[in-house]
This record gives sequence, structure tokens and C-alpha cells, in this order.
Amino acid sequence: MPSPVKVEHINPFLSATIETFKSMLRTQITPGKIILIKGAKLSYDISGIIGLSGGARGTVTLSFPRITALKAVSEFIGEKVVTMDDTVKDAIGELTNIVAGSAKKDLAQYKINISLPSVITGENHKVLGGKEVIPLVVPFSSPLGDFNLIVSFISET
Amino acid sequence: MPSPVKVEHINPFLSATIETFKSMLRTQITPGKIILIKGAKLSYDISGIIGLSGGARGTVTLSFPRITALKAVSEFIGEKVVTMDDTVKDAIGELTNIVAGSAKKDLAQYKINISLPSVITGENHKVLGGKEVIPLVVPFSSPLGDFNLIVSFISET
Repeated sequence: MPSPVKVEHINPFLSATIETFKSMLRTQITPGKIILIKGAKLSYDISGIIGLSGGARGTVTLSFPRITALKAVSEFIGEKVVTMDDTVKDAIGELTNIVAGSAKKDLAQYKINISLPSVITGENHKVLGGKEVIPLVVPFSSPLGDFNLIVSFISET
Repeated sequence: MPSPVKVEHINPFLSATIETFKSMLRTQITPGKIILIKGAKLSYDISGIIGLSGGARGTVTLSFPRITALKAVSEFIGEKVVTMDDTVKDAIGELTNIVAGSAKKDLAQYKINISLPSVITGENHKVLGGKEVIPLVVPFSSPLGDFNLIVSFISET
């Protein structure tokens, strides 16, 4: 049976998400209780996913309901967006990229490189892990709405 | 404007997918014409995504309609599966892992490492790239049904 991601491996991603929303979106976000993916509300409308590899392997995902995504991207680009177009897709990919890049600095001992982002769209899709590890989910609340951070992480060392 | 992935970077993933289906699923699959993601049929029911990083960055995705996924996983595990359960999710993640690992060998000059897989479920979701590059899509046909290989790849060197 796969084990859940260790909580000490979640913290750099959690801090990176808080910092990114603070600096890039001028928005204070509040983490809820970290939960196993099996107990999480997992249906989203848009998700940004980045792979992590090197001395550790993992993925980091930011998953948003439509309304939160539109508000977050409006803050991010400084312009009101109301439809789920390429601007929103690119911005969600970029936000995920910034969070992964920022977390990477706090995980320097693992010599992680980050992949290109993938962006998933589609009402009520779910982002799950493979069989290697049980991802952990951090549900965030914010003035822009709720969203989730999902992290898979295995140290190879 | 982002450029499309170079065709020479697609070929190792294309060959790896054909070889994996041949060796693991005893199934001959046939690639169609490589297309830009914007012209592709992009709605799927389950997708396996792996990130690539190191001397190049990218992602490799295998995206399946439900019926193709069930038939492919039945061949893969040697047991008939009829519902989209954890077995199917794990198997699609594993298949994507094998394809990425196999393609990596043909891209040795880029010193690529592969991330953990993410598996997306949800009717008619789409898997898109970020703003860095326009992913290429290889539509495959097979006795198990149709499915798509989607590749993003940027050489950093």
C-alpha cells in the first residue's frame, strides 16, 4: 500500500502558495486542515499541474472552481476576466509554475527540477495520484473563493 | 508566441507508446497525423500525465475515452475491468510512467528525469499546455479504440 506524502514535504508547497498569492495577487489565503486525497472534495473546473523530478519525484497541483479561477486570474493579470479562455489557462499554468519554483528553493537538498505545466479544464474533473504515494490536499479559503493545493512527493534518497 | 514542439522531440514518445502497447498490452496501435493541440479532439475521460525535467522540460500525457481506457487496462492487467475504479486509475498512471521512462532512454542527451504521474478523471476534460510551448498531439487508433498522446517538450540547451 502506498504511504501518504510526509507532512514536512508539504510545508514548502504550502508556504510557497501563501507567499505567491500574497505577492502576486495581493490576497491573503488561509490553509485548512491537510487531508488525504481520498477524503477531499476533488472536483474542479481548472487545474494547473507541474511535475517535480531529480533527487525526489512528485507533482504539485493547484485546482480551482471556475469562479475562484476567474477572480484569481483577474487579480494576477490586473484585468477582469469573465470567461475561461486562453488567458485564464496560461495564467493558471504560470501561477502553478511560480508556486513550484518557489517551493523548490526550500527543498534544495533534493535538487529538484520542475517540468512544464499542464492545465486541465473540464467541469468537475478530479486530479489523482498514481499508485506510488497518496497525495495530500491542502484546502485553501480566500476572499477570491476556495481552491486546493495537491502535493505528491517521494524522496528518492 | 510559443512555438510548437519540434517533431524530432515527438518521435521518442511516439515510438515508446507503440512499443509499450505492443509489449505490455499485446496490441498494435497506429499513429495518425501529428497535429497541433488547437486542432485536436481534446475531450477525454481519463488521462495520465508525467512531467519531464532536467536538461529539457516537458510533459507527456496519454488521454483516453472511457471505453478505450477500460479495454486497455483489461489487456494491461490481464483481467476484465468494467468500471472506472482505482485499478484503472493506477494502471493508466503506470502505463504513462512506462511510456515516459522508455522515451527518456531515447532522449539521453537531455538527462531527463520523470515526475510522479497524475491521473485526471472526469468526463470531457481537456489537457492543455501552458504558455511556454504549443503541445503536439498524436492521435492513435487501435483495436482497443482511439486515444491521444500529447507531448510538450522544450530543450533548455
